Amino acid sequence: MDNSKDTEIKQTKATKGSITALNKVRTDLALEVRETFKDDDVEIKGVILKEDYDKKKNIKVTTVEIKDQKGAEAMGKPIGTYITIEASRLGQEDESFHEPITKEIAKYIKMLAGDIDRKEVLVAGLGNREVTPDALGPQVVNNLFVTRHFKQEFGQEFLDDHHMGNVSAISPGVMAQTGMETSEILRGVVRETMPKLVIVIDALAARSITRLNKTVQITDTGISPGSGVGNNRKALNKESLGVDVIALGVPTVVDAATIVNDTMEQFMLGQGFSDKEIGQFTSELAGQSMNNMFVTPKNIDESIKRISFTISEALNKCFA
Amino acid sequence: MDNSKDTEIKQTKATKGSITALNKVRTDLALEVRETFKDDDVEIKGVILKEDYDKKKNIKVTTVEIKDQKGAEAMGKPIGTYITIEASRLGQEDESFHEPITKEIAKYIKMLAGDIDRKEVLVAGLGNREVTPDALGPQVVNNLFVTRHFKQEFGQEFLDDHHMGNVSAISPGVMAQTGMETSEILRGVVRETMPKLVIVIDALAARSITRLNKTVQITDTGISPGSGVGNNRKALNKESLGVDVIALGVPTVVDAATIVNDTMEQFMLGQGFSDKEIGQFTSELAGQSMNNMFVTPKNIDESIKRISFTISEALNKCFA
Amino acid sequence: MDNSKDTEIKQTKATKGSITALNKVRTDLALEVRETFKDDDVEIKGVILKEDYDKKKNIKVTTVEIKDQKGAEAMGKPIGTYITIEASRLGQEDESFHEPITKEIAKYIKMLAGDIDRKEVLVAGLGNREVTPDALGPQVVNNLFVTRHFKQEFGQEFLDDHHMGNVSAISPGVMAQTGMETSEILRGVVRETMPKLVIVIDALAARSITRLNKTVQITDTGISPGSGVGNNRKALNKESLGVDVIALGVPTVVDAATIVNDTMEQFMLGQGFSDKEIGQFTSELAGQSMNNMFVTPKNIDESIKRISFTISEALNKCFA
Amino acid sequence: MDNSKDTEIKQTKATKGSITALNKVRTDLALEVRETFKDDDVEIKGVILKEDYDKKKNIKVTTVEIKDQKGAEAMGKPIGTYITIEASRLGQEDESFHEPITKEIAKYIKMLAGDIDRKEVLVAGLGNREVTPDALGPQVVNNLFVTRHFKQEFGQEFLDDHHMGNVSAISPGVMAQTGMETSEILRGVVRETMPKLVIVIDALAARSITRLNKTVQITDTGISPGSGVGNNRKALNKESLGVDVIALGVPTVVDAATIVNDTMEQFMLGQGFSDKEIGQFTSELAGQSMNNMFVTPKNIDESIKRISFTISEALNKCFA
Repeated sequence: MDNSKDTEIKQTKATKGSITALNKVRTDLALEVRETFKDDDVEIKGVILKEDYDKKKNIKVTTVEIKDQKGAEAMGKPIGTYITIEASRLGQEDESFHEPITKEIAKYIKMLAGDIDRKEVLVAGLGNREVTPDALGPQVVNNLFVTRHFKQEFGQEFLDDHHMGNVSAISPGVMAQTGMETSEILRGVVRETMPKLVIVIDALAARSITRLNKTVQITDTGISPGSGVGNNRKALNKESLGVDVIALGVPTVVDAATIVNDTMEQFMLGQGFSDKEIGQFTSELAGQSMNNMFVTPKNIDESIKRISFTISEALNKCFA
Repeated sequence: MDNSKDTEIKQTKATKGSITALNKVRTDLALEVRETFKDDDVEIKGVILKEDYDKKKNIKVTTVEIKDQKGAEAMGKPIGTYITIEASRLGQEDESFHEPITKEIAKYIKMLAGDIDRKEVLVAGLGNREVTPDALGPQVVNNLFVTRHFKQEFGQEFLDDHHMGNVSAISPGVMAQTGMETSEILRGVVRETMPKLVIVIDALAARSITRLNKTVQITDTGISPGSGVGNNRKALNKESLGVDVIALGVPTVVDAATIVNDTMEQFMLGQGFSDKEIGQFTSELAGQSMNNMFVTPKNIDESIKRISFTISEALNKCFA
Repeated sequence: MDNSKDTEIKQTKATKGSITALNKVRTDLALEVRETFKDDDVEIKGVILKEDYDKKKNIKVTTVEIKDQKGAEAMGKPIGTYITIEASRLGQEDESFHEPITKEIAKYIKMLAGDIDRKEVLVAGLGNREVTPDALGPQVVNNLFVTRHFKQEFGQEFLDDHHMGNVSAISPGVMAQTGMETSEILRGVVRETMPKLVIVIDALAARSITRLNKTVQITDTGISPGSGVGNNRKALNKESLGVDVIALGVPTVVDAATIVNDTMEQFMLGQGFSDKEIGQFTSELAGQSMNNMFVTPKNIDESIKRISFTISEALNKCFA
Repeated sequence: MDNSKDTEIKQTKATKGSITALNKVRTDLALEVRETFKDDDVEIKGVILKEDYDKKKNIKVTTVEIKDQKGAEAMGKPIGTYITIEASRLGQEDESFHEPITKEIAKYIKMLAGDIDRKEVLVAGLGNREVTPDALGPQVVNNLFVTRHFKQEFGQEFLDDHHMGNVSAISPGVMAQTGMETSEILRGVVRETMPKLVIVIDALAARSITRLNKTVQITDTGISPGSGVGNNRKALNKESLGVDVIALGVPTVVDAATIVNDTMEQFMLGQGFSDKEIGQFTSELAGQSMNNMFVTPKNIDESIKRISFTISEALNKCFA
């Protein structure tokens, strides 16, 4: 299904020092960070890797657990659990597939959330609704079944009688639209409405274009600054918001510099260039105008529509 | 330009007690409340009325000042200043008109806001972006020039050097989308980001269809519950948000019950029915399915596009 | 479920001549025209009425067949079959209901279309996508599974192998956006691409607000000018397009004048006014500014989203 | 302003044979094709180049005239005039700049269109409104002042009296949405409504990311298949539509393969690889998954909003 990994692993095997160079490449996926390590089978200290492949459903689930500070440093990501669901038909027209992937996503959200049934949950759809590949979060919120106001109006019994969770939702927009950090807005809303759990939905940047619109990452760490996204949106996690935060993301873009760098690096490694030379060349590239560019598939509108619908369904299933 | 007033005044003159009946009719416009009073020229205690008509620009400005609690009770609106700008071409394709009306709106916002130049301002675009006549607020925010993040990144000097105000903005959505009161969201955001002034933009309900998309109301009272909107959105004012609040609204809908009631009432008055009979009949109507219905013009999309652009321009002018 | 009918029937029974007055009221539903006739059980010449109520599914299907010119004149609608599916939960959040109503719609489209399996079909989503209650047609097209280009690229075998029909689609926009009649655009596209059947999807005007977003009308007559819509969009039918035309519509608005007129008429009838007096009064009302106004529910965005999805599903089912 | 050219020229000067390799790279801009030729100042047979730089306005206009078949073959583009307006602030927030660039665009449209005043013009906004960088065409149509229906309703005198041109417009959508070629739809509409001129607006693919959202290309050749766009949309030109066609395009994306290929080629040329080796490597890359990917700036929503508004204004100016 996903042949990007092989390429990357081969590449990282070619030279010992490449880890450093590669780690500079932006990715929001813990899975892709893990793949940059030299040897796939050897365990990195403080990081546990578990893979699960359901051949019938064609869904692969990888769990990366970062257990301690050592693992966090090696991975460049905070301590916590990162679940990656890979399903090649995620963004495609395929009714028969809708159901199993929805269930799978719901299962892992529940796993990380603990008893979600009666919990007050705030779902935050991050991203810019005006830029197609970044509209995932707002689109998920659009299709969400929101119920918190029923409690305010009719009491908790109403929710209980109708087997409804307590769900509120917001699409805060991006800093260029609001002039505010997403973290500022969400912190304010959380303090005012006191949910027990925040679920942030966001479009992610992957390193490999083969993963776009085929992967869902769910983590109990929230979103941390500099974790790959490349914009200085401040942290959205338990520390910053004061409540548990689950982040659910789907890679929908690759940084333009990344696809160029990857190809260049691969070529230069093959030509026998040293890591230093490669690093020099690629950092020059990164400094250029490519920096604020992203790569995305031409049919991104269809993918976003389907995936956001699938995620909304999964969330609706969680809270019912 | 606007012949609705005459009709209404005639109607209210016909019978002494009609005020009671009429006051039940929903309107968000202080101007329309004022018009329901029996005699247009006689001053109501605690309420000052001032009219200004610029024939050349074809813009009429009415200022209703509610000075004390007595006036507030008579008007059913809080103490404060209500400026109504009536311009029949507000929602129309008319480039030559764009400039003067923009200037007029900016002038009155500045008047109510005091020295706005260096003030931190949060603009909140209320309403549901998915329902055309309710999308005014979100559309205004879409076209707004937001600058607060420049200060966070480059310092106050940057704003000063570029003659920029400090503007942040949010479109919080409506309760059916978020499960939260708008007041909860804004209170949270205000506490976190500490603006000195909040400007809320909202689509309003008028009583007369002849006023739709032709009127801008600007008030320093913010928005108060039960002030005519008909949904129990809680207050957005200095008391609830902790900072000064200016509300800018444009009537884009009339409640369906209102247009029926008005016609009925007019007819029944003519037929010699008593106020009690009229009240009984119209309250029966109001209890029916018409309750969650609104009336709006067929070309509402064009009007919303133009008016939201005009208001954004006026706001951008204020902060530059 | 729908108590509007009773009211209207009672009303029409009250006086013999009311038919004339009532017929002036705008409706796009054959069912509502039929209801204006004095006696519900007596057959009008040339018009056959059949009702079918599935209690378990809570779906009522009414078939109005206009058999000859006499019936056409009485009804003010062209000869043909008008199927009305009434389902009170059509526009509501209700997953379990999605399936039966989808099947019902698909069944009647197939019935009117004949063998649709291998037919080339053009679906036209009429209406203005920028005005929420008018966006039904464009939204249906958005969710449609379009396949015609697969044949052009891979041949008919491809469609056969994948059990796909041959479906093309267009959202032509409205005259204020295009400067062209919808009929001009569709005639051009039909001549160029030669489908065997055109299905037009459109938002309709009902007479009763209780029918809004709860009714689907399917007819093999296409859309004819002056059939209630009130804008002079020219005919979309076999005569004008040269191929069979099925029209599928959902009432999402009521003309503002209609709800006022209806209430007035009901009241005046009760007060013993003559038909002539009533006609005079209501025609005066109609001449006023209310003319270009429509009435629609406040939650119209949710209804349009759900109904358009249901209709797309029904169409996708038809062509698979 | 635009340093991409220098880079490319240096690169093409480095080796004689590079033209072949470079020409394979996709671009919709005649200007960029011209730049790939070895020597910038030497005239290619059958191709005339004229540059015009207005320092004060910071607008550069380049006219490429392909005079004969020889030039057409060398350029890989049909005989005709290609005007490129480069303005670095085209997609930026800049009120003072709006006016001059609007005038410039209007000037060149008029130049290519001849006497446009009373001409019936159909503006076609190509592209997918759901994918931000491809939404340019539909957005331009959204802001266009359409008038053709006024003539149908009130006669030519109405247009004359109001100094209006005769403008119709359509956003036909893309093949994945309609199942039809854009050329089929437009041919049908043209035959039915008989405009004298068609102006197609489209988002283009550039070769250099530095040109994105800074360049407008206007040509009297229409759009021809394989002219760089990479999708087999059939021709939109005088031959296919039967009337004059002006194409106005703005590069908003770069093909992902292009930016990788360009960087690789530049690097490999520097390393002394032969053209053959370079060609082999880059064609391997092109065969990979990158093929259906595009590169676009992160703030593409803002750019599309501003540019589409500017182009609409320019068109409105032309027809008034």
